[in-house]
Amino acid sequence: MADVMAVTRHTSIAPIDGGITAPTGFRSAALHCGIKAKAGALDLVVLAVDTFASVAGLFTTNLAQAAPVLVSKRHLEVTRGSGCAIVVNSGCANACTGEAGLAHARRMAEEVAGALGCEPERVLVASTGVIGVALPIDRVVGGIQKACSSLAHGKGSEAAQAIMTTDPFPKEHAVRVTTPRGSFAVGAMAKGSGMIEPNMATMLGFITTDAQVEPGMLQRALTESARDTFNAITVDGECSTNDSLFAMASGVSGVAIDEELYPALLDGLLSVSRPLALGIVRGGEGATKLIAVSVYDARTVDDARQVARTIANSPLVKTAVHGADPNWGRIVAAAGRAGVAFDMQRVTVRIGGILLFENGLPHDESAPGAADILKRDTVDIEVSLGTGNASATIWGCDLSAEYVRINGEYRT
Amino acid sequence: MADVMAVTRHTSIAPIDGGITAPTGFRSAALHCGIKAKAGALDLVVLAVDTFASVAGLFTTNLAQAAPVLVSKRHLEVTRGSGCAIVVNSGCANACTGEAGLAHARRMAEEVAGALGCEPERVLVASTGVIGVALPIDRVVGGIQKACSSLAHGKGSEAAQAIMTTDPFPKEHAVRVTTPRGSFAVGAMAKGSGMIEPNMATMLGFITTDAQVEPGMLQRALTESARDTFNAITVDGECSTNDSLFAMASGVSGVAIDEELYPALLDGLLSVSRPLALGIVRGGEGATKLIAVSVYDARTVDDARQVARTIANSPLVKTAVHGADPNWGRIVAAAGRAGVAFDMQRVTVRIGGILLFENGLPHDESAPGAADILKRDTVDIEVSLGTGNASATIWGCDLSAEYVRINGEYRT
Repeated sequence: MADVMAVTRHTSIAPIDGGITAPTGFRSAALHCGIKAKAGALDLVVLAVDTFASVAGLFTTNLAQAAPVLVSKRHLEVTRGSGCAIVVNSGCANACTGEAGLAHARRMAEEVAGALGCEPERVLVASTGVIGVALPIDRVVGGIQKACSSLAHGKGSEAAQAIMTTDPFPKEHAVRVTTPRGSFAVGAMAKGSGMIEPNMATMLGFITTDAQVEPGMLQRALTESARDTFNAITVDGECSTNDSLFAMASGVSGVAIDEELYPALLDGLLSVSRPLALGIVRGGEGATKLIAVSVYDARTVDDARQVARTIANSPLVKTAVHGADPNWGRIVAAAGRAGVAFDMQRVTVRIGGILLFENGLPHDESAPGAADILKRDTVDIEVSLGTGNASATIWGCDLSAEYVRINGEYRT
Repeated sequence: MADVMAVTRHTSIAPIDGGITAPTGFRSAALHCGIKAKAGALDLVVLAVDTFASVAGLFTTNLAQAAPVLVSKRHLEVTRGSGCAIVVNSGCANACTGEAGLAHARRMAEEVAGALGCEPERVLVASTGVIGVALPIDRVVGGIQKACSSLAHGKGSEAAQAIMTTDPFPKEHAVRVTTPRGSFAVGAMAKGSGMIEPNMATMLGFITTDAQVEPGMLQRALTESARDTFNAITVDGECSTNDSLFAMASGVSGVAIDEELYPALLDGLLSVSRPLALGIVRGGEGATKLIAVSVYDARTVDDARQVARTIANSPLVKTAVHGADPNWGRIVAAAGRAGVAFDMQRVTVRIGGILLFENGLPHDESAPGAADILKRDTVDIEVSLGTGNASATIWGCDLSAEYVRINGEYRT
């Protein structure tokens, strides 16, 4: 990646350190409160803004929604996008936990609000971990009180670690966006790593910025940036009960985002979201390869997405990539069952740029070259449908025996 | 299974030996023609009827359809359901093989027709195996000529073996249906075992009967019987390029099927189809357990099927069952993302009859008992949605590291 990208006229974006607390006006604290069994394993984060911030949120489309999702949706609605903090726990999803679970999620918000001196509705809540287990609420409350008294700048990395479950590595990123009217920072952290599918998953994502943004515009930018990042990834086609993506804007930079600067804000969000989304896939349960499935020449963008998603979720394609088998036949078969316009005579399939199928016929002479490409840790699958001129990309990963091991032994 | 079942008034059904050639009027021959590399591995079958038979067929819904599927559909159309033989090869799917593949599939029908003295359109063709590889047509033609000169009664078992690819065991079954107007036999064979998903898959199924049935009625009975058998199973959610299910009725028994006897014919078809469909799942790639997912109290049968299918195809549910983890949370999460009416407060989840989730709350005290049940080789998952009174069952299997191994190394 180039260090500085010129994304729109007179605007440039450069990576900076600091993750979620890189933008001014945000403090965080992460600690072990005792949800995770392992001593010292970070399992609680409070992220607070020094003043009221604009907040925005996107949530799982699963109809089985966890208590923190229901509570956060309600809080966003009641405050119309004004917030002061987010509290997150890992190790327990607080999902399928009935009325007690709802009370626990509300209690988490209340404790943070009490410690920070704001209304409980201005606190958002997120949880990730095992479904159907009650939160050890006393430990969580104790942890929240301790965390709220130790909020600090420059602690973004600990926060990114504390939201992890089966993630093999933390995911955080931050950039500085420089516009003719001043500069602002955007920071982010996210976690995966199973149940990852477009439209959120056991994915939690948090984005901060010190730009000054009205809640409606923040929501619009969050939605637009998620479409081609957090909503364009899949690990196993599962959509979880807890997926949440939040954005908070402190306004401390003094750079007010209007329609003129909206593209700069959007580019900032995209710049932090893309590496985190790809990081979620690369760190997917058992994943050894990142697979970028791009579908071209489709009738509509929705068609292109549907075909790309079907290929990226096909267990036969995923196992073939895992085994470095350039089995384009499985790619064609997945495209054919995706439920969109399809004509085998017009389809072309490329792996890593190498043409393997065209005009209804294989190019098996190219298979050895494609097999070499499949041994790399990033694989491009390109399918042209020949039915129009729309395109889309979905990022997925391979399916390994390790995925089976992780998910067969998760609770035992 | 009871030896004799009374299925409709005055009708009984009893298992008999002989598989696909148990009904009178059918002969078969199976041999190694050289498609499979392993010396002596059976890879070609000709199944012939002594006189013209009524024939019916169901085919994959995948839009990437293999040459034999295109040819057989056309032949069924042209002859309006009159046939004299079926030729099947394993080891090569003759899919994604362009014009040459179509010519090969037609040639297979022509060779059988030439040897048996009937029109090529009265011969149906099916292939299964690797996609995108050309048939060694000279070997296939040689094999067909040899097979047609050695057709015999009582060779059903060899035929059931010859259609196998990665199947761990052959699947055949036959029954005698006794009605007040005489008795007739129904025989069948089928193969899996990857790319198995409702609406056919790399599934081939063949059913014979010596009842006398008009083609339209045979097609109706085949469609109706497949709905709750071959179209109610899934191994990996993949729908293949080659799936075909054929039925042939020789009429030799002299029992003419009219509306009065239609239920007896349907019961006969169901009796042979159910064990074969379940056999395909049990013999699914890497499968160690058969999972019956039954959804009750749904708004519609389609809703019930959709939820059952989503659960049966969920990699997280499949790996949990594989690891004997009574993770009902994943079942609830899969049901919640199935795209049908869903209210978490009304849902109940049972594994092997043990209640694990009700009124939005877990019954974790029952988890150890459910874990014991999950160690068995057949697992019942029951979900009540509480939104209506329709129900459906889908049969699937667990997801094991062996599935990954088989499909990562299929061609290497």
